[in-house]
Order: sequence, then C-alpha cells, then structure tokens
Amino acid sequence: MEHYKVKEISVLLTNSFANRVDRMKSSDIRELLKLISADIISFTGGAPDPDAFPSPEQLREAIDYILANREKAFQYGITDGLPSFRESIIKFMERQMAIKAELKNVLVTNGSQEGLEVVGRLFINKGDKVAVGLPTYLAAIQAFNLWRPKYIGVPVDKDGLNTFTLEALVKKHRRTRKPIKFVYVVPTGQNPTGTIMSLERRKHLLEIASKYDLFIVEDDPYGFITFRDNIPPRIKALDDEDRVIYMSTFSKIFAPGVRLGWVVANETVIKHMSLAIQAINLCPPNFNQYMLKYFLDKRLIDNNIPKIRRIYREKRDAMLMAMDEYMPSEVNYYRPDAGFFVFAYLPDYIDAKKLLYYAIEKEKVAFVPGRSFFVDGSGYNTMRLSYSLPKPNVIITGIERLSRVIKDHIKRGGS
Amino acid sequence: MEHYKVKEISVLLTNSFANRVDRMKSSDIRELLKLISADIISFTGGAPDPDAFPSPEQLREAIDYILANREKAFQYGITDGLPSFRESIIKFMERQMAIKAELKNVLVTNGSQEGLEVVGRLFINKGDKVAVGLPTYLAAIQAFNLWRPKYIGVPVDKDGLNTFTLEALVKKHRRTRKPIKFVYVVPTGQNPTGTIMSLERRKHLLEIASKYDLFIVEDDPYGFITFRDNIPPRIKALDDEDRVIYMSTFSKIFAPGVRLGWVVANETVIKHMSLAIQAINLCPPNFNQYMLKYFLDKRLIDNNIPKIRRIYREKRDAMLMAMDEYMPSEVNYYRPDAGFFVFAYLPDYIDAKKLLYYAIEKEKVAFVPGRSFFVDGSGYNTMRLSYSLPKPNVIITGIERLSRVIKDHIKRGGS
Repeated sequence: MEHYKVKEISVLLTNSFANRVDRMKSSDIRELLKLISADIISFTGGAPDPDAFPSPEQLREAIDYILANREKAFQYGITDGLPSFRESIIKFMERQMAIKAELKNVLVTNGSQEGLEVVGRLFINKGDKVAVGLPTYLAAIQAFNLWRPKYIGVPVDKDGLNTFTLEALVKKHRRTRKPIKFVYVVPTGQNPTGTIMSLERRKHLLEIASKYDLFIVEDDPYGFITFRDNIPPRIKALDDEDRVIYMSTFSKIFAPGVRLGWVVANETVIKHMSLAIQAINLCPPNFNQYMLKYFLDKRLIDNNIPKIRRIYREKRDAMLMAMDEYMPSEVNYYRPDAGFFVFAYLPDYIDAKKLLYYAIEKEKVAFVPGRSFFVDGSGYNTMRLSYSLPKPNVIITGIERLSRVIKDHIKRGGS
Repeated sequence: MEHYKVKEISVLLTNSFANRVDRMKSSDIRELLKLISADIISFTGGAPDPDAFPSPEQLREAIDYILANREKAFQYGITDGLPSFRESIIKFMERQMAIKAELKNVLVTNGSQEGLEVVGRLFINKGDKVAVGLPTYLAAIQAFNLWRPKYIGVPVDKDGLNTFTLEALVKKHRRTRKPIKFVYVVPTGQNPTGTIMSLERRKHLLEIASKYDLFIVEDDPYGFITFRDNIPPRIKALDDEDRVIYMSTFSKIFAPGVRLGWVVANETVIKHMSLAIQAINLCPPNFNQYMLKYFLDKRLIDNNIPKIRRIYREKRDAMLMAMDEYMPSEVNYYRPDAGFFVFAYLPDYIDAKKLLYYAIEKEKVAFVPGRSFFVDGSGYNTMRLSYSLPKPNVIITGIERLSRVIKDHIKRGGS
C-alpha cells in the first residue's frame, strides 16, 4: 500500500470546489446540528408537516394513473420535463398565480435547488456581482458560491428587500468595471425573515431591472404558505419584459420526497438551462412527474392549499404567542406573514452559535444561527426558528426552553 | 421595451458554459435527431425495453410498503441517500457483484449521470488530463466538458480499453507539467462498442493506477446486461487500494423513470461528492428510494436479471443476424457481449452524419453518428446502433433499410 496517495483527495480537488469546501469547513454548524438527537426539540430545518402531505387514498388513485401510463412513466424522459406535465403546471399557474407561460418557458427541476444551481452555472463568472437580501436563503448562497460571485447585500425589512437601497447600490456599481448582474429575491415568506415584499417594491424592482438592464431571480417556495389577505402578485406575473427567472417547488404544497420543482423564464434562458441540466442528470423522473400531473389535473393540490395554510398558521401563531410570552424584551423578531420561519435578533453581545451549544446541551432545543444567511459576515447575534415540523404544543415547550437559555445568557452578559 | 437587452443571453453566460454551448452548436446531430417521427425505425437512444420494467403487481406491493413509511417517504432526505436504502444496495452488491462496501462508501445519485457530473466538478480543473476510450460514452464527455479537461484518448479493442497503450501514455504525460489525473472506463458493455474488458486488462489497469498514482472512474450501467459466461469481476471488486470510483444505475435493471443510481468510493471522495450534490439538488427523492428498497430487499431485481438478459440477447442476436445478412462486406462491426449497442465502421470515404440524412429521409431509419464518441475528432465514418428498444422484427427491417442506404452510398463513392 506504500504507493497509495489518492486518499489525499484535497490535493486533487478543483480550485473552485476546494475553495468552497474550505468555506464550509470554517462553519462548524453542520457538525453542531449532528448533535441533535430524538429528545431534542428542533427548530432547525424547514421540513414540511406530514399532515400536509397527500393522503394515501389520493396517492393510490395516482398510482393507478401512473400504471395506466407505465411504459412512459418508467422510461427516460425529456430534460425539460414531460410536455404534458408542463402543460398541467402552466394551467395551475394560470388559475392560481396569474402567471402566463407557454411550454417553451417552463422547465421541470429536481427541486428548486436545481434551478439555483443552474442559474449559478449559467450566469456567474468568478467575480460577477449578485445582489441578495441581508439576510437571504442560505442554500442559494451555497449553490452560487461554487461559481465565486461577489455578493452585494441589500437590507431586508418588514416590506421585504429594500429596493431604494438596491437602486443606490446598482447605480454605484454601474460606475465600476462590474455592474450588478442579477438580483436574487424570495419575495413571499422571505427565508429567513418570513416577510412579504410589498407590491410597490415589486414594481420598483422591475423598474430598476428595466432601467439598468438586470435580471431578477424570483425564488418562490412559500408563495402559497401565506397567513394574511392581500398577498401581492408574483413578480413574474407583473413582468412584461421577461426579466424574471421564476422558480418554485412542489415540496411545500405536495411533498419534498418527490423532489420536483419548476422554472419559468424567457425561452432562451430555458434552452440554456436545459443544456446544463442534461449534463447534470439527463432529466427529472417521469414516474414522479406523472404522479404530480395527476394531483394537479384533479386539482387535489389546489384543494389542499387552504388546509396547508391552516396547518402552518396555527404553528406560526403558537410560536409567536410563546415568544411574546417567554422571550426577554431584549429579543426582537419578525412576525412572519408567510413561510416557515421566525427570525430573531438577540442583544448584540450574544453570539448565537455559542448560544446553540448551550441550548442543545442544557435545554435540548436547537435552531439555526443566523450568520450564514448574511453575505456580509454580520448577523452573528441572529437566529432562525422553524415552526414547520413540530406540533404546536412542542413549539411552545421549545420556545420556553430557548427563552430560559437566552435569559440566562443575558444575565451573564453573553458569556 | 426599448431598454430590453437581457434577451441577448449569450453575453451574460459564464465563460465555461458559453464555451460548452459553442461546442454543442458545432454538432447539429441533436437537431437532426429531432426529425425522427413515429414512422422512423430508431436505433438512436439507449432506452430500455418496457418488457424489462417491473410488473404492475410488484409495483402495487411496493406502493403499500411506501405508504407504510409515508411520513419518511414524502419528506426531505439525506444528501447521501437514505441509510436503509444504501444498506439494501450494499447487500445487493455483496451478493451480486462481489463488491464490499460500508455505508460511508455509498452515495445515491439521480441517475449515474449525476455521478459523472460530480466527478467533473470535484476533480477537473481546466486543462487537467483525463484518459478515456477511443471511442467512449458521449454523455460522460458532455458532463466533463464544462470543466474543460484535456482528453487523452486510449484505443478500445475487443478486450476493452488497451491498457498497454494507456501505460505508455501515462508515462509520456508524467514527463509533462500535467500528468494524467484519472482514467474513465466503461469496462462491461462499453458504450459504444459493447466490448467487455478482459480480466488481465482490469488487473493491469489497477496496477497502472497504483504505480503512477491515478484513480479510476468505473462506469457500469451494463454490468448485468451480459450475453456470455465468464464475465470478469467489476474493477471495484479487485480494487484493494480504494482507487476506483465505481458508479452504476437502476435504469437498466429496474427502470430509468425513477432516476436512481449510486456511487461506491473512498469515504473522503463520498464526503466531497455529498457536499457537491447538496448544492445541486439537496438530496435524491425518498419516495423513489423506498420503492427501489422494496424491490431490492424482496430480491425482485435479482430475480428479474435473467429475464432482462434474455430480452436484450434476443435483440442483439436479431441485429447481428440482420447485419451479417444485409450489410455490405465493407462495413465492419463489433459483436457486443454486453450492453445495448452495435458499433460499426463504414468505409473511410463515408461520413456517417451525411449518411444519417439519407437514412432518415429515404429509408426512415436512424442511428447515432459515431464521431461524438471520439475525443480526438476521428470516427466520422462510424455509427452506433442501439437494439435496446425496438422489437426483434423491427430491428431486422431497420437493418435491412440501413444496409440499402449504405450500399447505395458505397456505390456512389460516399457522396
């Protein structure tokens, strides 16, 4: 075995990937979260509530439908997704989202993460500037990082991404060699703040994109997980210049276990995305597409949306009620109108990562430290609390426990 | 709309992707194959025969099993794949493939294409040297191309990749600044030649890898689609230095419509692959993994292998018989012992791409011109004929038609 050196894999890794692994190593949150065992109340991941999943009866009907199309359902598919499934998505978008699209504008993905991956692959050269929220969705940053962009952070407040600051930043960077190339935004149920971008800002964002020739990546996993009236239309529904690359997923309105999402964009963008995905994994699974097609065509997904909203609203309410009750006044947090998360700011002398150790060890409760959601290295005193999976009574117990750890920390001045 | 410039997407594309698109544009085969309509006999894709797919009865049993595990089957999974499914794969490999692996060595992928994608992402820096067969699997080249390697072509003959030439090339490139980094090989049912690499060469390849510190990517989609006795063990089964990254798929022994494959490798390689895939699409679908787990644990896949072999052997026999009968003596071809394809050499004054136009237009028969399988730009006079999908009598008719076009071309001296 003396010749054996291949194990020193770090030497063999590509520059861009090794760079990325280094960045990930520097964060040991992943390792920390491995400590989570069954007796810990976890507010970490954004896993949906199984009560929101399709019923076994409906699933059996869908299986009959799949078996009636067995030869196609088990065969290789088309990279863009089955045309008949994309037609079903188009009709769903028309009736539920006011988005109009043709077949050539729609691409099926293995979860919306794959849409993010492909956006990075197609559009980010090393050093290209990408505007994102402060904070913004962690896994989008992870997907983009491989391509080594330069992030321009744009503050998020209760009305979503602050487009006035964005415009100032766009102007500023236009005067450099590299203008901002695109804006990544989660307008409804922003991850992690749970905010909904106002209609005015959505329109303003489109104006900025038009005026300065940017494009917009609209990530919309929580578009249906909303808890108030008067939700503004998707940015894509307002986009008459075809500047928006819209992506969504069936993970929250059906189930994540089938890994299906979709992208709506300009025909040329879709063509290039298709070329990219062909090299990644050829095509999404036909079997799963037939399943979802059945649920869409029978309007089982449409009909399930009110129930899904109720499930998460109840949990959101439980978490907010418990936080109002137990959290010390030094802790501030958003009151989410959509999505799966409450995002909280601790006093600035508290490091949320350090707090997490204590929370897990002493009170058996876990959360995601917020720092990874900030591309500017800030947010060390923030935390994301997911209410999507635990039952309401468990949420209340968990928040009570977490409040104790925080109070204790505040008493000791954060050490 | 006068501001609108985003449509000029080619300007926005990343350098590496634009480069790749240019290469793809230069080949118009894709466009040509779009001409294929229902009345054309197609020997193009490598789609499995639906008779080889799982039976509806077995599938319904599997659905019962999935529904009994509904909460997990519909939930997000782990990037590496469900541990219980990976355990089922490990047992399958032990009893069917003499490959020993532990959980930490196995990763589930969205089809084996994703394994190729990730190998490229992890290991290919621009200009890195990768040894591949002449010819070799087209989609591996496509997956690697984005990362811009330099290919070193190694001749393939009836015993597979010529390892003596490989060793000479490895030696030669060791004297340059960039030695060869890894060897990509499809040892059983080589795509496109259908050859089986001999045991001696498999051993020699491992010796070369050890002596010159390379690693080996063993792509094994056709390992069970074999038509003779004495199939040598997988290279991975002989690999006592952990130098082989082994990848396979359930597409040919179950069905491509579920998009599941797997990788077996060194623990460190698997860890990095997992990090890469997490950013691409988070995880493979739990639903599909539960389905396959049922089929593996009940040995339904094991029990189906003899039938699958019979299906493709009959088709291989039909194609070879028809070629022996109808093809002019100027056409030479491999007699495949495994896989889905017959690979043929036309007289060197015939351009197979040009021939394809005539074949589709005049005789309504299609094939894949072989040039794309050669990284050195040769092979313009070769063609790959897939026998996996059409019925035996259709194969015979198709070959008869194709032979007419070729004879006609030979008569006219290739013009």
